[in-house]
Amino acid sequence: MSAPSPVLVDLKFNPEGIAHALKTAFPDRGSINLADPADAARDLRAVEYALLWKPDGDLFSRAPNLKVIFSGGAGVDHIIGMDGLPDVPIVRFVDHSLTTRMSEWVVMQCLMHLRAQYAHDIKQRRREWAKLIAPEAAEVTVGVMGLGILGQDAVAKLKLLGFDVIGWSRTRKSIDGVETFDAGGLDRFLGRTDILVGLLPLTPETTGFYDRGLFKKLRGGALGWPVFINAGRGKSQIESDIVSAIREGTLGGASLDVFEVEPLAADSPLWELENVFITPHDAAVSEENALFRHVETQIARFERGETLQFVIDRAVGY
Amino acid sequence: MSAPSPVLVDLKFNPEGIAHALKTAFPDRGSINLADPADAARDLRAVEYALLWKPDGDLFSRAPNLKVIFSGGAGVDHIIGMDGLPDVPIVRFVDHSLTTRMSEWVVMQCLMHLRAQYAHDIKQRRREWAKLIAPEAAEVTVGVMGLGILGQDAVAKLKLLGFDVIGWSRTRKSIDGVETFDAGGLDRFLGRTDILVGLLPLTPETTGFYDRGLFKKLRGGALGWPVFINAGRGKSQIESDIVSAIREGTLGGASLDVFEVEPLAADSPLWELENVFITPHDAAVSEENALFRHVETQIARFERGETLQFVIDRAVGY
Ligand SMILES: NC(=O)c1ccc[n+]([C@@H]2O[C@H](COP(=O)([O-])OP(=O)(O)OC[C@H]3O[C@@H](n4cnc5c(N)ncnc54)[C@H](OP(=O)(O)O)[C@@H]3O)[C@@H](O)[C@H]2O)c1
Ligand SMILES: NC(=O)c1ccc[n+]([C@@H]2O[C@H](COP(=O)([O-])OP(=O)(O)OC[C@H]3O[C@@H](n4cnc5c(N)ncnc54)[C@H](OP(=O)(O)O)[C@@H]3O)[C@@H](O)[C@H]2O)c1
Repeated sequence: MSAPSPVLVDLKFNPEGIAHALKTAFPDRGSINLADPADAARDLRAVEYALLWKPDGDLFSRAPNLKVIFSGGAGVDHIIGMDGLPDVPIVRFVDHSLTTRMSEWVVMQCLMHLRAQYAHDIKQRRREWAKLIAPEAAEVTVGVMGLGILGQDAVAKLKLLGFDVIGWSRTRKSIDGVETFDAGGLDRFLGRTDILVGLLPLTPETTGFYDRGLFKKLRGGALGWPVFINAGRGKSQIESDIVSAIREGTLGGASLDVFEVEPLAADSPLWELENVFITPHDAAVSEENALFRHVETQIARFERGETLQFVIDRAVGY
Repeated sequence: MSAPSPVLVDLKFNPEGIAHALKTAFPDRGSINLADPADAARDLRAVEYALLWKPDGDLFSRAPNLKVIFSGGAGVDHIIGMDGLPDVPIVRFVDHSLTTRMSEWVVMQCLMHLRAQYAHDIKQRRREWAKLIAPEAAEVTVGVMGLGILGQDAVAKLKLLGFDVIGWSRTRKSIDGVETFDAGGLDRFLGRTDILVGLLPLTPETTGFYDRGLFKKLRGGALGWPVFINAGRGKSQIESDIVSAIREGTLGGASLDVFEVEPLAADSPLWELENVFITPHDAAVSEENALFRHVETQIARFERGETLQFVIDRAVGY
């Protein structure tokens, strides 16, 4: 039996953290880290497993014998359209800590809009004492788009905080105490939604999806205006439409963690819009150690002949 | 049988909302609203029930035949030390909506500190893209002081968001999955706490309680610094100590809804401290209609000879 092949690692984020964590990860088979100059030119022909986040364009021709591809994050849109992508299983990253962090971010953003944090902040800077009486959470409907791992966790936590929560996904889900809609119920879903939370993957169907026409269908209700929150993928949103929707009052606020182009350009008008909170794609980060453990677990399953978990469906793109 | 006596109302908040809600409240007995010029000079000698928030100083001599006093809020510190306070039951306001709103505020403030909202806001204003990787909630211990109606609801919701939560109260409480301490365990409690949440009533024992010495006993842990959050009463905190603790780094942040003197003076240094969020005592407002319904319910119980609910204990002051 030949020695197990090292795991190929090409992750375009947090290089120091990854280099550090790789020292102890994959003890049985080792790794090849393309970010490490000593590894950059290595022969990759024997490599069977690759862990990727925005990999090099020539990666698949250099490593023609992959058996499984692992995504370094929850999404796979950074790989799925690549030239030469082999027909092998693509496993995405699903992790308790990543899910928890996303829900922290979603709940915080919903509360900041509910409780008028932007207005409070302005008053504070003016040293002005002025009570701002908000509706309570139960009077506001949060509509969550995408009821996968992240969406369902966010729904549960938003409910517990007292929000009225409804949900939308491609195939209809059944969740206790939550009215759900499928793709066909889109307009009814939007017409009931005060705060829209986007947790959709990027696919051809969700590209450019959050646009002016969609924002116009939202309700507003007890807050007085609709709010758009997106932590899925930036290419699902039309940023020029967000800007005009906020300026003309179609939207009363937004929270964005993802952008059409990242990093968000310094001259984007989004940075300074009223009642818009910007975070730099750090709502839910992949923690390296958890990521490497997840890859080890899945490789072990695969080599024991068990089914891999979290394999994406290429036909739908997530 | 004589006609039922009207309810005396002396509430020093939201005069328009109260005047409006009083039009339909207490249909069987009516009310006397001291904020209404037509009522201000009325003879109050026959009045049996009074609903008060920071009442006039001569109120008890004008209304010497009170049978029950109702507080217009959850706290009673605004009445308890007053001259001429008769020896009758004092009922405080407990309400689902008030509790829910307080937990919204507490959870939001804890999340804003966990997720470095202040630092994100600075980066946003500078149009700077810089990921700020926060610990996850489970790595941070929130210590809740006061495990009454508000404290226990906040504890449950903080737990669900993933925080490690511990609690402190005069008499030890037993709460699933939460380590609790009684008065004697104060130092051990503080030494385990990263984010301190104050939900204590104002009594002689809790006056001036949150001071420099107490802040120095907090931990800091995964956040890198301790945070002080207070939505109980302002006179429990020494504001000059908060200012110096923030300036010298003993505290890394704070969220304050209550102040030694309200409204907070425009020249208070608190308004502009780094990583300090100020709200103008609007974390959890008493909604008039709910308040009047609660008073009606309790009067009906009292007149049927049942025990009143939410009666405070004068010996301990809350
Ligand atoms: N900002 C960040 O830091 C960050 C971090 C992690 C992940 N993300 C993003 O969040 C996305 C969601 O992650 P997840 O783990 O929850 O994914 P998931 O478990 O695959 O769930 C995706 C959900 O979206 C729904 N969906 C997909 N395409 C749809 C369409 N065309 N119309 C309606 N619904 C559609 C799916 O419907 P079905 O249930 O019918 O399949 C499913 O409910 C990831 O793809 C990633 O892009 C962002
Ligand atoms: N900022 C706002 O908008 C707002 C709104 C509503 C209320 N409040 C404030 O919040 C306070 C708490 O409300 P609540 O309804 O939760 O009151 P509660 O049900 O009476 O609970 C008070 C808690 O504080 C504890 N406590 C009191 N004195 C103590 C002491 N000396 N040492 C240790 N623990 C002590 C009590 O201990 P035991 O359990 O042993 O009795 C109890 O757990 C109110 O009194 C009010 O001042 C503020």
